[in-house]
Amino acid sequence: MTRRRTITGFSNPAVKHLRGLREKKHRKAAGQFLAEGLRLLADARECGKLPEILVMATGREAHPLLTALEADVLAAGGEVLEMDEDILAKVTGKDNPQAVAGVFAEFDTNLTALDRSSAKIWLVAQALRDPGNLGTMLRTGDAVGAGGLILIDDCADPFSVEAVRASMGAIFTQQLAQSRWDEFLPWLRSGAGQLVAASLRDAQPYRGAPYAAPCFLMVGNESRGLPEDYEMACDLRVTMPMKGRADSLNAAVAGAVLAYEALAALDD
Amino acid sequence: MTRRRTITGFSNPAVKHLRGLREKKHRKAAGQFLAEGLRLLADARECGKLPEILVMATGREAHPLLTALEADVLAAGGEVLEMDEDILAKVTGKDNPQAVAGVFAEFDTNLTALDRSSAKIWLVAQALRDPGNLGTMLRTGDAVGAGGLILIDDCADPFSVEAVRASMGAIFTQQLAQSRWDEFLPWLRSGAGQLVAASLRDAQPYRGAPYAAPCFLMVGNESRGLPEDYEMACDLRVTMPMKGRADSLNAAVAGAVLAYEALAALDD
Repeated sequence: MTRRRTITGFSNPAVKHLRGLREKKHRKAAGQFLAEGLRLLADARECGKLPEILVMATGREAHPLLTALEADVLAAGGEVLEMDEDILAKVTGKDNPQAVAGVFAEFDTNLTALDRSSAKIWLVAQALRDPGNLGTMLRTGDAVGAGGLILIDDCADPFSVEAVRASMGAIFTQQLAQSRWDEFLPWLRSGAGQLVAASLRDAQPYRGAPYAAPCFLMVGNESRGLPEDYEMACDLRVTMPMKGRADSLNAAVAGAVLAYEALAALDD
Repeated sequence: MTRRRTITGFSNPAVKHLRGLREKKHRKAAGQFLAEGLRLLADARECGKLPEILVMATGREAHPLLTALEADVLAAGGEVLEMDEDILAKVTGKDNPQAVAGVFAEFDTNLTALDRSSAKIWLVAQALRDPGNLGTMLRTGDAVGAGGLILIDDCADPFSVEAVRASMGAIFTQQLAQSRWDEFLPWLRSGAGQLVAASLRDAQPYRGAPYAAPCFLMVGNESRGLPEDYEMACDLRVTMPMKGRADSLNAAVAGAVLAYEALAALDD
């Protein structure tokens, strides 16, 4: 079986499969997701993660990284597909034409796979709906040396093209879990861990608050914030100054301001 | 002349005008922008800003705020348009159907209109391309009590629907300027002001850095960061810890982490 093919038509089943990965139901069915652009693929490779399928435009410029990636993918039993730029553009979307993309196996996002002792900071998002915010939180987690991101209740799909793109590669470095609240809380309480909410209710100033590792920093839904009972189950509720008319920050921004404060408190 | 009209057809010129405001060239030609949703319109009204045209769905639920807004708009010489939900949905976009929208006059964004003494913190963004990031920076500016946002070089349009939405009303509370670098720097140096860059070059830790009011916090383009000569023209270059693989944060996140640090340093 040859694992290197050139796709010449828009109607090729492989094109349909790749395009399908832009939709959640097809991602779930295939257990795969799409990451676009050489930089993301290079990040993944450095983290030891290779695509199952490497997709490249014919006639692209040679690039040593791409050559190495291609060899690695074939060596690992993966597939390499070449196609004309206009076909590839249909796969990667007109807003973001890329000369290379990769199809990766979705990761295990079971909460029990997380090793909480591996980091001092963990980010937790509840019902986060915007994939850009989700990807940005992964990126921030990478920056503060967090262990990963735990998604509570109905969040955006972390394997969506938008979330993967906004993560700037952190999808490959951060641990990722998806859980319901009533599964998360018992898991958290079964070991060490301080649960901290960004909150306006009965909260203390976020600056100088007694953060303790492993510290789980939780932000809520973009419109509604956290449910009150979730906040009340936290060990610590902290609030950021709000000097203007608004009473909240963008969720990814709130998470980042908290994460950098916790990092300053917990970093040796 | 009656200033209250019901629009019954998709082909009505008013519908075409409103839809056109989703595109920058039509916004510039009309000197107007679109803000969608009752919450944004209520925010604007509280800031003393009324739409020139108030657009509402027929058959919407009565709302005291909307009734008051309608009266204010008519009293101020504005126009009220009612239309069926399906026509309004065509105006506000299928991703974000809203029962009410407003058409506002674009503000003066000349640098010389800014009063730098009115706030201790100002946000500055250079070549920021993502309207969501831009709106998020306005929102963060409101939260930290900043005076406003200064857009340097070719940034996303702050009057785009996406930026206005992400600002969560801060488009109406924050001052806004658009400027080229070679106009901004002389303006800055013509008065008091410390220019601070989020930077990796010759930078000191952002935490505990000697911020001084009025403090202008500058972040760069999402892909390229700030040009080196822009960074070198700054009075202070600060850097955030980067514990992971990536060497940068999302631009709006970087601005927010810096802004909260400056707020802690400068707030009385």
